Amino acid sequence: MTRPIWDKGGAAVDEAVQRFCAADDVVLDRELFPFDVRASVAHVNGLARIGVLSEEERVALVRELGQIGEAFAEGRFVLDARFEDGHSAIEHLLGERLGDVGRKVHTGRSRNDQVLVAARLWLKERLGALGALCLDAAGVCLDRATTGERVPMPGYTHLQRAVPSSLGAFFAGHAEAFLDDAETARAARARVDQSPLGTAAGYGVNLPLDRTGVAAELGFSRVQVSPIYAQNSRGKLELLGLTALHQATLDVRRLAWDLSLFSTAEFAFARLPEAYTTGSSIMPNKRNPDVVELLRTLPAAVEGAMAELSATLSLPSGYHRDLQATKGPVLRAFGRALDGLALVPALLERVTFDEARMRAAIDPTMYATDRAVELAASGTPFRDAYRQAAAEMAGLAGRSPEQSLSARVSPGGMGALGLEQLTARLAALRASS
Amino acid sequence: MTRPIWDKGGAAVDEAVQRFCAADDVVLDRELFPFDVRASVAHVNGLARIGVLSEEERVALVRELGQIGEAFAEGRFVLDARFEDGHSAIEHLLGERLGDVGRKVHTGRSRNDQVLVAARLWLKERLGALGALCLDAAGVCLDRATTGERVPMPGYTHLQRAVPSSLGAFFAGHAEAFLDDAETARAARARVDQSPLGTAAGYGVNLPLDRTGVAAELGFSRVQVSPIYAQNSRGKLELLGLTALHQATLDVRRLAWDLSLFSTAEFAFARLPEAYTTGSSIMPNKRNPDVVELLRTLPAAVEGAMAELSATLSLPSGYHRDLQATKGPVLRAFGRALDGLALVPALLERVTFDEARMRAAIDPTMYATDRAVELAASGTPFRDAYRQAAAEMAGLAGRSPEQSLSARVSPGGMGALGLEQLTARLAALRASS
Amino acid sequence: MTRPIWDKGGAAVDEAVQRFCAADDVVLDRELFPFDVRASVAHVNGLARIGVLSEEERVALVRELGQIGEAFAEGRFVLDARFEDGHSAIEHLLGERLGDVGRKVHTGRSRNDQVLVAARLWLKERLGALGALCLDAAGVCLDRATTGERVPMPGYTHLQRAVPSSLGAFFAGHAEAFLDDAETARAARARVDQSPLGTAAGYGVNLPLDRTGVAAELGFSRVQVSPIYAQNSRGKLELLGLTALHQATLDVRRLAWDLSLFSTAEFAFARLPEAYTTGSSIMPNKRNPDVVELLRTLPAAVEGAMAELSATLSLPSGYHRDLQATKGPVLRAFGRALDGLALVPALLERVTFDEARMRAAIDPTMYATDRAVELAASGTPFRDAYRQAAAEMAGLAGRSPEQSLSARVSPGGMGALGLEQLTARLAALRASS
Amino acid sequence: MTRPIWDKGGAAVDEAVQRFCAADDVVLDRELFPFDVRASVAHVNGLARIGVLSEEERVALVRELGQIGEAFAEGRFVLDARFEDGHSAIEHLLGERLGDVGRKVHTGRSRNDQVLVAARLWLKERLGALGALCLDAAGVCLDRATTGERVPMPGYTHLQRAVPSSLGAFFAGHAEAFLDDAETARAARARVDQSPLGTAAGYGVNLPLDRTGVAAELGFSRVQVSPIYAQNSRGKLELLGLTALHQATLDVRRLAWDLSLFSTAEFAFARLPEAYTTGSSIMPNKRNPDVVELLRTLPAAVEGAMAELSATLSLPSGYHRDLQATKGPVLRAFGRALDGLALVPALLERVTFDEARMRAAIDPTMYATDRAVELAASGTPFRDAYRQAAAEMAGLAGRSPEQSLSARVSPGGMGALGLEQLTARLAALRASS
Repeated sequence: MTRPIWDKGGAAVDEAVQRFCAADDVVLDRELFPFDVRASVAHVNGLARIGVLSEEERVALVRELGQIGEAFAEGRFVLDARFEDGHSAIEHLLGERLGDVGRKVHTGRSRNDQVLVAARLWLKERLGALGALCLDAAGVCLDRATTGERVPMPGYTHLQRAVPSSLGAFFAGHAEAFLDDAETARAARARVDQSPLGTAAGYGVNLPLDRTGVAAELGFSRVQVSPIYAQNSRGKLELLGLTALHQATLDVRRLAWDLSLFSTAEFAFARLPEAYTTGSSIMPNKRNPDVVELLRTLPAAVEGAMAELSATLSLPSGYHRDLQATKGPVLRAFGRALDGLALVPALLERVTFDEARMRAAIDPTMYATDRAVELAASGTPFRDAYRQAAAEMAGLAGRSPEQSLSARVSPGGMGALGLEQLTARLAALRASS
Repeated sequence: MTRPIWDKGGAAVDEAVQRFCAADDVVLDRELFPFDVRASVAHVNGLARIGVLSEEERVALVRELGQIGEAFAEGRFVLDARFEDGHSAIEHLLGERLGDVGRKVHTGRSRNDQVLVAARLWLKERLGALGALCLDAAGVCLDRATTGERVPMPGYTHLQRAVPSSLGAFFAGHAEAFLDDAETARAARARVDQSPLGTAAGYGVNLPLDRTGVAAELGFSRVQVSPIYAQNSRGKLELLGLTALHQATLDVRRLAWDLSLFSTAEFAFARLPEAYTTGSSIMPNKRNPDVVELLRTLPAAVEGAMAELSATLSLPSGYHRDLQATKGPVLRAFGRALDGLALVPALLERVTFDEARMRAAIDPTMYATDRAVELAASGTPFRDAYRQAAAEMAGLAGRSPEQSLSARVSPGGMGALGLEQLTARLAALRASS
Repeated sequence: MTRPIWDKGGAAVDEAVQRFCAADDVVLDRELFPFDVRASVAHVNGLARIGVLSEEERVALVRELGQIGEAFAEGRFVLDARFEDGHSAIEHLLGERLGDVGRKVHTGRSRNDQVLVAARLWLKERLGALGALCLDAAGVCLDRATTGERVPMPGYTHLQRAVPSSLGAFFAGHAEAFLDDAETARAARARVDQSPLGTAAGYGVNLPLDRTGVAAELGFSRVQVSPIYAQNSRGKLELLGLTALHQATLDVRRLAWDLSLFSTAEFAFARLPEAYTTGSSIMPNKRNPDVVELLRTLPAAVEGAMAELSATLSLPSGYHRDLQATKGPVLRAFGRALDGLALVPALLERVTFDEARMRAAIDPTMYATDRAVELAASGTPFRDAYRQAAAEMAGLAGRSPEQSLSARVSPGGMGALGLEQLTARLAALRASS
Repeated sequence: MTRPIWDKGGAAVDEAVQRFCAADDVVLDRELFPFDVRASVAHVNGLARIGVLSEEERVALVRELGQIGEAFAEGRFVLDARFEDGHSAIEHLLGERLGDVGRKVHTGRSRNDQVLVAARLWLKERLGALGALCLDAAGVCLDRATTGERVPMPGYTHLQRAVPSSLGAFFAGHAEAFLDDAETARAARARVDQSPLGTAAGYGVNLPLDRTGVAAELGFSRVQVSPIYAQNSRGKLELLGLTALHQATLDVRRLAWDLSLFSTAEFAFARLPEAYTTGSSIMPNKRNPDVVELLRTLPAAVEGAMAELSATLSLPSGYHRDLQATKGPVLRAFGRALDGLALVPALLERVTFDEARMRAAIDPTMYATDRAVELAASGTPFRDAYRQAAAEMAGLAGRSPEQSLSARVSPGGMGALGLEQLTARLAALRASS
């Protein structure tokens, strides 16, 4: 390993200790590295604006940072255990290439605000991706809601057959969920959208840094004012980001549960595309809905990360090395959950439904609620109507699902799904992202 | 217990079973009851607008609901184990008082959307209170930041003395944290602000309910369109609300940790008001910071609730009785955390700081970073300046905290706390709430 | 409220502060109170043995403690907000009744070890109850496994039909799970079984307390030696207890999920006793498996408690008021989970199964694994046998479930369930508890 | 990638889908692979014993498995994305090397019991390592307790100075904690110690497998009887293992918190060995206790894993692909926590304490409890003695810590630490492991 940048010539650190401290930090930093490089460019530009770097130095640093970024993107430079972390690597490489000028890059910053800004930029980008994926999922759901609007399927409560529903209503429900999730992702992104760069180790620095200009160059909409809060928000804002991710995965899980049930032999409402299934090593007859089952685990991954972060944050103000432990869970949870979420649209496009089977599962007693409400609408006190309908369920055999659906005309009801409203909301969210 | 409203004359349910099912639901419902009554009034008004109730019936029901609400508020009516839950109680009481007319109140709704709407109204109100408390805390912090702007105190990283800081910076950091929390509470409130009433048991109802009008009467800014999503969002939106609560309690915990440390004999920076401390049953010499320690546990209460909710929500679409188990954790966590948060402003107003002690804790090596940056500003590569400053720490003895603080002039830095910016943000948030 | 026992005549504490600090402690203490009384008796006896109390004093204190315990048990004395907590109440009542002698009871102890010992006794008792309930559940499962040994039902993996199974195998699986849980409860109980009484506030006391004798009187098998560890184990041992509870509830959840699925119209394998179901407020046709669904939430309650405790315990050594917050979650989680677990045996005794329906759900392709293994047993490489069986599934129509089950003769297999082994283990556990 | 072993010639699976399903499974399996090989050998031996494999086939398979294991251990064979998982790799390699004979290895087993047995063997080994590390830590603590028995240091409650304690008492407390943890690890290991091999996909197999013999060969003390429970215990027993790990990390965290506080400039009781600290990238004066801070995060890693597992396990009976998601969290948590735990003994051996500083921190009011107890011992009711001691604290200045410590003679008290008892327990645990 290269010497730590904080090395002042003392005794070497213990090998096992160093390994424990480094953990997989340098590997995790691979994901943050491009953002670190980008923030370093902005930092250098800012230093030049206040005269701490000459124009010549600025140009040299920006050029080399650009090349480091390219080399990394193309795999020519690999961030590995030679470096304590990605931040040290940048300084080390610049020093190697530019000598004294390279060793100037860290003026006015600490690794504390350096990791904060890289993580913040990364998180903003991931929350943007999350929002977009939610809108994609909502879009497919709305398409299928439209084509399924008149396709009856049983509606369940307590997993017991309740009242007739429709395939369209099923998809409309999931669509609205994903629309909410897109807005939640956006709100989280807005909260995260504040630049910590220029706060150094939590107490600022004796230079007139152009924090506002640097923030603007990096696309932040505002500066995080307090250096102390910049440190104290480490992990906290990541948790907020995870929450947005969690909300979306909760809806993926509901959907996955539905598809898991609907593709059993007993329900047999849905058939998953073969590419989304696998086989058994011992049972020749099996075709298993693995993708759906793994999608069902996404909230677990996010909850694990949330629990790990929350447990780490019981600390007084200021930076503590504990906070390093917040990095891995966040990267892993977003990685896994977004990979899964990205599969949802195609899965929903391709899953097929057995309309005859769904219709057959609507038994006549499921019209009893309609009957009770009809009685109530014509004046019978509802509680009496309820008992009367219960007593007369045998008389409901002649009803049809279509009739039942089309009578439910309250906004959003099975006869008035409100798809135009949901579609308009989707369009508005897409337009503004 | 009164007979269940769903009773159709079958066998009695088992006593132990009934107790397990009821759990403490009826007690929990005491908190939701006023909202349930309010939503019932809106529902009744809506039914009248579509002709399902006559004006006379409407007036009678609204009047009785008003009286039930009043009796409850004044303690004349107590919600207890006579009723399966608060929803059944309302129907039962109306039936008792108004006969047939009373038994009409449930027309077009289910307990499913009834509990959803009451919980939603409750949660909106709690999130509003959360935001207001965060603004209160931020306000006190800003006041103390202003008076403490020139009061030096040591700044720590890793709990090790790092660079000089100030009491003002300390409070400014906590102020900005609470401002963020207020905005997060507001964003959560906006997501929760959608009316589920009129979605019945998750599949709508065969009546042309005026869902939009009812939503408006209840102060919702929009209707939750899909009845299926209305059910599927049970617990999910509560989780979002808990997240906002969690963010604020994380900041309370940081603050509590700071005060806990600062009030040890070893730090002795802060002295808590006597009313916020208690004594020991065995040690006559003790005066313990119990309030601060209990404030430190607030995130734990919220995390427990979040874990319980998350674990409950692994379900297919549609209502399941499992969802009842989401109620207790949410009510308890908000109750406890808001009670604690309400103590924060007065605590912060009254805690005193020992300025001499804090100044004495700033040792000269803490100026080394200033020195390194000065060298860097005049052209020495920072990494060399860092080593030079490390070697020359003995020469820093003559510096003063004031000098060090005033030189940190980047926005938010110790010499430019940006209190006007934070104050403006507070004012804007107050104005718009 | 009575004056705090630590009161030394200073300023009154703030009302809101006091309410926040007390929280629902005194209500929670109602569950610990009988154990606190019992431990107080042992403490008093111990003090007499070392000459700190005279025999007369001892007799008086033991007699009054007995009366306090009785009054509490019979509801004549109610622990309420007059007292800071249950510990203070005991001292207060004794002082009231016995004057100076009563005010001697706290000699040589602190509320710190007082609450520890009461909580420890309570937890031991609850873990004993947990173990017994697990054995009860295992017993019913074994009974039903015996009668169901030859009743075919489909076996699932991925919720897809896999190979023939039996009702007996289903119950044998749940039986073995509960046997493991009983042993886990016992192991947790053994760890918890150490007396903290006599450690005072974590640093011992200047008296030659007979800790060993007191521990023996209370039924502890050993003394917790270190007073510092006694404090540090607060919450930690409760967490261990919760883990044992969690293991059992995980198995209840599996079982509840099975019954939930099996009682859908689509599976229709199981029929729940009517007393374990409820109705809908709007849908006259519904009969819902509420008990099973609420049983499914038990792990959530335990996980919430575990998360809350874990989050509370990030502290340096020694008592902190934070630890008070560990009490509520533990009491609530055990209360809820044991209430639920107690319903399991009767539920399992009374649920009925539709044998014809289960047999009909075994389709011929489910014999493909049998076929592949047969081919492999006669020399075909298994991987080839697997493909051959896959290709020839049409030829399996003539097979019967009985044939398939009886051929699976490895220990525990469908043809050799090993019920005698499980029954012997149950008997051994019962005998030793 | 090689073709999946379950491939029956259907359509290729989608690339993105395959990547999502595989996740990092094959990398995780690197840790399980040696155990999988070992279990495969036992399985092969068992098949030979029942005549399914000839002696010649057995010898060939065992030999090749041995070579695969060696090649893997020496890095000549790397488990990577060519294979769906480690289980498939074994079958693939055997087929490649031994043709038909190799393709016989999977006779009578499924990947379901294959992964179960490998994970179970791995977990047993890890729990053994955990227990040993706890005993190591306890051993060092006891050594330091012995040498520190007469070294006074302040004892704290609520982080406030309470009564005099000693360095020996401090270490004795941590020693007893680690002894408990070793026993908890052992109890978890005993529960996990049951062989699932021979249960196939959860319903057994139509062969007379010698499950008992195979279990014995693998060092299991018993067979897990029910194939259904074998599947249902996936994740459940891992959770139990994590609990044992959690208990130990909770104690590491307490210790790390103590060292973190004690090494602040304000306490300055402890000095960490330089090799366990690092520097700052910007502040030349810093020397940070990073190792201690990262040790403090260990419970967070375990809690994250526990949360992820718990959230995954809400499923009906039988295998589901969801269960794959239990693997990563368990491997990661054990890896991280054991790495950290392994650093504890050397850290505790090398940390030094400033005896003068600790003695100076014992102020006279800390003798007030001694005084109150003395008064009580000579007949004053304790509650009166308490108030009297509070009023007379000024008179305590002449006392010494030694006096105070030596008077606390109850078993475990500061004057009677009970080190011989703890040492005997350590020896007994070491002897029996």
